[in-house]
Amino acid sequence: MSDYTSRLAAFLASLTYEQLPEAVIARTEELFLDWLGSALAGQGTHPIPLFERYAEKMGPREGACEVLVSGTRTSPYFAALVNGASSHLVEQDDLHNSSVLHPATVVFPAVFAAAQDLGRSGQELITAAVAGYEAGIRIGEFLGRSHYRTFHTTGTVGTLAAAVGVGKLLRLNHEQFIHALGNAGTQAAGLWEFLRDAADSKQLHTAKAAADGLLAAYLTADGLTGARHVLEGDQGMAAGMSQDANPEYLVDRFGERWALLETSFKFHASCRHTHPAADALLELLWNEELGPDDIQHVITHVHQAAIDVLGRVDKPQTVHQAKFSMGTVLGLIAVYGKAGLAEFQQHALHDPSVARFREKVSMILDAEVDAAYPRRWLGRVEVVTTDGRRVFHGIDEPKGDPGNTLSRDELEDKFQRLVSFSKALTPDETKALIARVWQLRHLTSVCGFLVPPASRSKA
Amino acid sequence: MSDYTSRLAAFLASLTYEQLPEAVIARTEELFLDWLGSALAGQGTHPIPLFERYAEKMGPREGACEVLVSGTRTSPYFAALVNGASSHLVEQDDLHNSSVLHPATVVFPAVFAAAQDLGRSGQELITAAVAGYEAGIRIGEFLGRSHYRTFHTTGTVGTLAAAVGVGKLLRLNHEQFIHALGNAGTQAAGLWEFLRDAADSKQLHTAKAAADGLLAAYLTADGLTGARHVLEGDQGMAAGMSQDANPEYLVDRFGERWALLETSFKFHASCRHTHPAADALLELLWNEELGPDDIQHVITHVHQAAIDVLGRVDKPQTVHQAKFSMGTVLGLIAVYGKAGLAEFQQHALHDPSVARFREKVSMILDAEVDAAYPRRWLGRVEVVTTDGRRVFHGIDEPKGDPGNTLSRDELEDKFQRLVSFSKALTPDETKALIARVWQLRHLTSVCGFLVPPASRSKA
Repeated sequence: MSDYTSRLAAFLASLTYEQLPEAVIARTEELFLDWLGSALAGQGTHPIPLFERYAEKMGPREGACEVLVSGTRTSPYFAALVNGASSHLVEQDDLHNSSVLHPATVVFPAVFAAAQDLGRSGQELITAAVAGYEAGIRIGEFLGRSHYRTFHTTGTVGTLAAAVGVGKLLRLNHEQFIHALGNAGTQAAGLWEFLRDAADSKQLHTAKAAADGLLAAYLTADGLTGARHVLEGDQGMAAGMSQDANPEYLVDRFGERWALLETSFKFHASCRHTHPAADALLELLWNEELGPDDIQHVITHVHQAAIDVLGRVDKPQTVHQAKFSMGTVLGLIAVYGKAGLAEFQQHALHDPSVARFREKVSMILDAEVDAAYPRRWLGRVEVVTTDGRRVFHGIDEPKGDPGNTLSRDELEDKFQRLVSFSKALTPDETKALIARVWQLRHLTSVCGFLVPPASRSKA
Repeated sequence: MSDYTSRLAAFLASLTYEQLPEAVIARTEELFLDWLGSALAGQGTHPIPLFERYAEKMGPREGACEVLVSGTRTSPYFAALVNGASSHLVEQDDLHNSSVLHPATVVFPAVFAAAQDLGRSGQELITAAVAGYEAGIRIGEFLGRSHYRTFHTTGTVGTLAAAVGVGKLLRLNHEQFIHALGNAGTQAAGLWEFLRDAADSKQLHTAKAAADGLLAAYLTADGLTGARHVLEGDQGMAAGMSQDANPEYLVDRFGERWALLETSFKFHASCRHTHPAADALLELLWNEELGPDDIQHVITHVHQAAIDVLGRVDKPQTVHQAKFSMGTVLGLIAVYGKAGLAEFQQHALHDPSVARFREKVSMILDAEVDAAYPRRWLGRVEVVTTDGRRVFHGIDEPKGDPGNTLSRDELEDKFQRLVSFSKALTPDETKALIARVWQLRHLTSVCGFLVPPASRSKA
């Protein structure tokens, strides 16, 4: 057994804001805005009110930490819990491809709560989030695909990512980071079994990962010791929960590779397997100046996993299921030019023009697309027009991926759509919050972030 | 996949106090007293004050639920957390052999907190505890020995056992018990990796199991759905965390077999895996009239799990780690005739005669002992005396096991030793609390149990 956990802890302890490239700082602000939008979008939708009521019953009714969906305040544990639950609800939060980790929904609830509790600055919040992303992504890659088959990586690894972020805000040293990883790793949990029953566990997993990671970091700061090799040890996470773990991932290119920059924003509000085809169709319609009624048939050339996941949905019965219907997603794209939360809510199930388009869409396995997956998600569509033409179009990097990322304007637009979907904020509040996020690195304190005292805001 | 989880849930939902045999009721009162003693014995010892401070920081400063080590009150989540941590600290809490589960330290903190929160009676507390024991023991047996190799069963399975007990107090129905198991099972965590570092994770595991199980039950009662086959499903606990799971254990003889009655009280203050050898050595020394200096070498013939758990400890660095050192335990037995809390505190680390004896002790795997385990914990020791004799001795049921159990007098004596060790209670308080426990089934409310209002006590 080598000293992988210790080397990871050393990197985390030594990380400073000054080391971060400008691109990493800017992207962290963007990921933070994207996370805030996702968290606010969950307002009012089952099961989020259950977590709010639970926090009210079990936690204090006051504190420094904001619960985003309610605007109330509580202790850091319960703020992390509720914000962790709400930010994964609408499935619009970010994703890191090779680790299959959704970092924002576990890292930001924890570091946001702890930063408010501890009165930390925007720069410290940014550094803490980067630490959480860098650790979480490497640990997810380390545990490998066998882990993901049974365990919901965002739940399990998320506990460690959250602990790391909070650990940074608590200014843990090298030795303490080893213990924080130990204390978080031994709490890591989350099984995929709920999926076939469409149960509420996804929100429970992100809520608990954020809150338990925070708990691990706070107890560590107060002196609780943990296993020194919780990741790679003989009775550690990999031993119990993986068959193909590779510890070299844990120490991959510290300070050179910024894994946070590899994170994808979600653009469409649908299953990610539909995104490449949606992007390709959108460009094709634009280039060819075609409308939905100009099209006779759409053949999407896809990877096998897309057929495995999407092939089961014929005529969707629920909005959630419609997000796994290639025909519905492309119908929304063709008729409304986008497939966002509002389009799904209003048009996915009972809109005749979308239903008509859905019947025109088919999927076929494509060898080139399949060979590139999962490293690259290629979009290839073939359209037969009503006047008999046959048009091909392809995109090589879906909208939101690192090489085709969203601009700040597009992120603002997505944010506005997310918060207006749940009616969480007024337009004025929305503008003010966006402006505050773009000032994050200049804030001396992130307290009262949602409802700032006039005296504090530098924005 | 069969309907194992559902059948278990049906039994739990239908269980009533009236169904419980008198022996089960009486034993539950005894187990409750034993648990209270263990919880109070943890007062003031690291890391328990950390959990107290954490609860004060994160939770409310008032509530119906008593924190035993501090006499303060808080919400049920934090009472379960702190009482769960403290009741496993001195390693004197009960154990169920074949499931390798310590039921009291996870079930009682949760049901005690929930019963106080909900204003339930002593009979309801007893019924809830029985449900937690019956479910937890069967789930531990189901997950098997492969689970225990990497996972701390009391942490993982404890989460479900606690959820079941609290679910009874919340009066969940059959369908809700399925969801409660799902919501608890997907939070189940706890790795043995901490053991070689003598880290504080054992208390974290029991604290979190009790508190997370309570969280699962409360959220379920409010409508959170969970996986319907979290135990036996394709992506459930057994799939992810066991290689030898047998679901028939989950539905073993409901209403006929009372697994709670199979639980052992701990006599020595050490890891249970040392007890069979300790009892065998004690008898051997007595029979042969041997002292520690008459002995050249002790070979303990043990089951594999004893080697897995105890084999990590060479020279113990802390009192807690000494409880996992076979040599230290047998050294205390040989030199002082017992291995209680006081002996550990005073002699486990720096006593030269105990250290000398420790070096004389080795473990070897014994086929007969291993085959009987975990149903029976056989004690087999082989002693080589300084004058060259070789003496064998065996015991078939360690002190405290169901067939060799402690009487109420012995339990009261153990309780008094536990609370006087930590100075948690005065002699008068001790007597009053013991009397209250023996009246448990007659109490209309368990609120203010540690510090009862004069108007309430029927004792």
